[in-house]
Amino acid sequence: MLFAVTMDVRLPDELAGDARADLLAREKAYSQDLQRAGEWVSIWRLAGRYANLSIFDVPSNDRLHEILWGLPLFPYMTIEITALAHHPSALDEGRS
Amino acid sequence: MLFAVTMDVRLPDELAGDARADLLAREKAYSQDLQRAGEWVSIWRLAGRYANLSIFDVPSNDRLHEILWGLPLFPYMTIEITALAHHPSALDEGRS
Amino acid sequence: MLFAVTMDVRLPDELAGDARADLLAREKAYSQDLQRAGEWVSIWRLAGRYANLSIFDVPSNDRLHEILWGLPLFPYMTIEITALAHHPSALDEGRS
Amino acid sequence: MLFAVTMDVRLPDELAGDARADLLAREKAYSQDLQRAGEWVSIWRLAGRYANLSIFDVPSNDRLHEILWGLPLFPYMTIEITALAHHPSALDEGRS
Amino acid sequence: MLFAVTMDVRLPDELAGDARADLLAREKAYSQDLQRAGEWVSIWRLAGRYANLSIFDVPSNDRLHEILWGLPLFPYMTIEITALAHHPSALDEGRS
Amino acid sequence: MLFAVTMDVRLPDELAGDARADLLAREKAYSQDLQRAGEWVSIWRLAGRYANLSIFDVPSNDRLHEILWGLPLFPYMTIEITALAHHPSALDEGRS
Amino acid sequence: MLFAVTMDVRLPDELAGDARADLLAREKAYSQDLQRAGEWVSIWRLAGRYANLSIFDVPSNDRLHEILWGLPLFPYMTIEITALAHHPSALDEGRS
Amino acid sequence: MLFAVTMDVRLPDELAGDARADLLAREKAYSQDLQRAGEWVSIWRLAGRYANLSIFDVPSNDRLHEILWGLPLFPYMTIEITALAHHPSALDEGRS
Amino acid sequence: MLFAVTMDVRLPDELAGDARADLLAREKAYSQDLQRAGEWVSIWRLAGRYANLSIFDVPSNDRLHEILWGLPLFPYMTIEITALAHHPSALDEGRS
Amino acid sequence: MLFAVTMDVRLPDELAGDARADLLAREKAYSQDLQRAGEWVSIWRLAGRYANLSIFDVPSNDRLHEILWGLPLFPYMTIEITALAHHPSALDEGRS
Repeated sequence: MLFAVTMDVRLPDELAGDARADLLAREKAYSQDLQRAGEWVSIWRLAGRYANLSIFDVPSNDRLHEILWGLPLFPYMTIEITALAHHPSALDEGRS
Repeated sequence: MLFAVTMDVRLPDELAGDARADLLAREKAYSQDLQRAGEWVSIWRLAGRYANLSIFDVPSNDRLHEILWGLPLFPYMTIEITALAHHPSALDEGRS
Repeated sequence: MLFAVTMDVRLPDELAGDARADLLAREKAYSQDLQRAGEWVSIWRLAGRYANLSIFDVPSNDRLHEILWGLPLFPYMTIEITALAHHPSALDEGRS
Repeated sequence: MLFAVTMDVRLPDELAGDARADLLAREKAYSQDLQRAGEWVSIWRLAGRYANLSIFDVPSNDRLHEILWGLPLFPYMTIEITALAHHPSALDEGRS
Repeated sequence: MLFAVTMDVRLPDELAGDARADLLAREKAYSQDLQRAGEWVSIWRLAGRYANLSIFDVPSNDRLHEILWGLPLFPYMTIEITALAHHPSALDEGRS
Repeated sequence: MLFAVTMDVRLPDELAGDARADLLAREKAYSQDLQRAGEWVSIWRLAGRYANLSIFDVPSNDRLHEILWGLPLFPYMTIEITALAHHPSALDEGRS
Repeated sequence: MLFAVTMDVRLPDELAGDARADLLAREKAYSQDLQRAGEWVSIWRLAGRYANLSIFDVPSNDRLHEILWGLPLFPYMTIEITALAHHPSALDEGRS
Repeated sequence: MLFAVTMDVRLPDELAGDARADLLAREKAYSQDLQRAGEWVSIWRLAGRYANLSIFDVPSNDRLHEILWGLPLFPYMTIEITALAHHPSALDEGRS
Repeated sequence: MLFAVTMDVRLPDELAGDARADLLAREKAYSQDLQRAGEWVSIWRLAGRYANLSIFDVPSNDRLHEILWGLPLFPYMTIEITALAHHPSALDEGRS
Repeated sequence: MLFAVTMDVRLPDELAGDARADLLAREKAYSQDLQRAGEWVSIWRLAGRYANLSIFDVPSNDRLHEILWGLPLFPYMTIEITALAHHPSALDEGRS
């Protein structure tokens, strides 16, 4: 089940140095683990913003929330979720 | 070059019957031609709305505009464009 | 999988008499069939507005979209969807 | 009398450790007491957000305000209230 | 139980002459009946707008909705409802 | 001359203990003096929010501003003012 | 008593020819009569828009509403009112 | 004196055929005359929208308004104006 | 050339005592110097807000920016600018 | 490929003295290097705001993002990007 998710990041000014580098490293690892597992399908940078647009493929809303709530950057993010459905003009008609 | 595009459709009440069916058929064919050509990468229905989220891969802003302006449903659409860039956490590191 | 859905209705002024009564009767039957089937869990009127707040329990985003797209009043509705997840303070801890 | 209430939580960065854990424990107990009493009918997590959608069944606006004002997390919440009424399509016709 | 209600009116251009005068007369009579009954406590014009701010004192959300839904001008109104509670600084301490 | 005024309060986290209690006591006394004087006609709590809706009856905009500017909580408030006029459907036709 | 008033005009497409010219002539005469009387202090065009910013000096909210409600273009206007007060930095200290 | 101006066009559905073609031809000629005169410095299409971003260099606000008000498409446009000033980082330091 | 300018002030809580009094005194002097020079034509308090509406008469956008940028309170202000033009209904027809 | 970019700056109050002067000097140098290289085509101050409107001419979204992400003031900016395309009324028909 597909969702489009936009995440806007706003780090506090005090977060700097090693604490910041460590946090960002954990965020990257967390994201890449889920990309390898196939649940985090795509991630793009929104040009000019500290933000991303991602596509998730998850079995349920609860799983989607669990993934997002667990993001190391979650406390500093504003997140918007849009539920996606199959589009009748999509070429990949076979997929559901 | 990637763009996320949201298209909201609002057909006039007067548009009905064959005129409507013909318009929608032309829209579908137009979209599928561009999907086959690789410029219209993905299209998803936004659940509960007469709207879609699409990903385009085009060589320029001018080409993106040309595609959207040519949509049979263009006069009835509200369109929002977001420029996408490579995200440093994306697994497909090789791609630019 | 639960979703909160808000539907705002705006009927065209021209829709009146039998055509209007028939449309509203079909909307009511459609809603009650889904309520009996357990997919449309709750429906409340938003006080003072021609609108409702509903809770849906569906197996997928595609099914949610199919239900909403099929509403007889769909062409006259503005719909907003919010994906719901289990809340850790909810008493019904066993449910997922 | 039913109300839909949305609560968005934004904890200050300074609130951490035991003080935070204690506050959240008190919030959970407060909510569950009211759920047991039947006034806090439902509570769902809004997926991807530190927020909930709740349904309250209270005898008056004053009681609703008293409950919300007393929430341990109240100083950190943005709250929206929507008054609900019986919907003529609801199956539970007998209820008022 | 008190509610503040704002009603914005937008009459269709086609509504004119006797039909318009009759509609407005029915609206006025409807409002004054409820004022005499004590449920429509106050009504003020919002200066410079075809709109009013009203205070209602009703036994329930259902009754409030019934009153508003029955307004002759309801199909042409945008209505906003705010639930009011007793304020601790109000002089009329005895009232609840 | 009547005005509807909405005041939203947001106290800084640092304001606590006696300083806070004293401020709130001064706010209450200030409000009640003006209620007794007849200029602050009504004050209601907006349910679920640290906010109020008030009706003022003052001789001029300058006096209204003087009252609001002097509120002990003014530095922590967001204030919205709506000028009210006589409504032709109001029963108290004699009043101006 | 001073008010800043913004009026945005949106004439219906059907209004044309003599009916339109006559309406605009009546609007201009109405405005200039009030300017001569000293109640409509200033009127400026908002550059690039069919709109104006005006300053009114009136004895009461009721008089302000009466003036605006009587505008020949009132049915086609969106009006916003801001109550003005004396500013302590204004050179014309003597005025109240 | 420079201004950035955004013009969003929304043509009525009834405008078609020769009337439409003529209107658009007059708009183009009007724009190109002003471009040749140096007052309409730049015009770009906003990708995916029936809209443009333009830069004007005019001697006064009155002249800017005169130009925009005279646009053949003015009745169908929503226009936003932003006053521009010299930026201290601009390389063309000499210009004022 | 006329501009309507709205300035909303939000002073930091830390700014107090002499530093605050000095800043406000400099702001007042700055404003009154420009009023005497004829560039700052009018300044009104927006009732109930720490804000003003001002009319400026300046030779260019650059001069307007220079004045606003130099305001002692500029770092604490949110400023909105609206370009004004002559209105055809204004009595002072001779002025341009 | 052209983009219109708006950058709003909000420096933290703590940033002062040499640290601030140094940051602004690096921002200016960074901008002027890109202006000389032809990628940062234009930069204008938005009158009355700590903000600019810029035109960029870049080979890709990735390059645009790289430039903006590298701005010394990036952590303190809110940035909006609009993709521009050739306008059919533009005199410079030859350019694409």
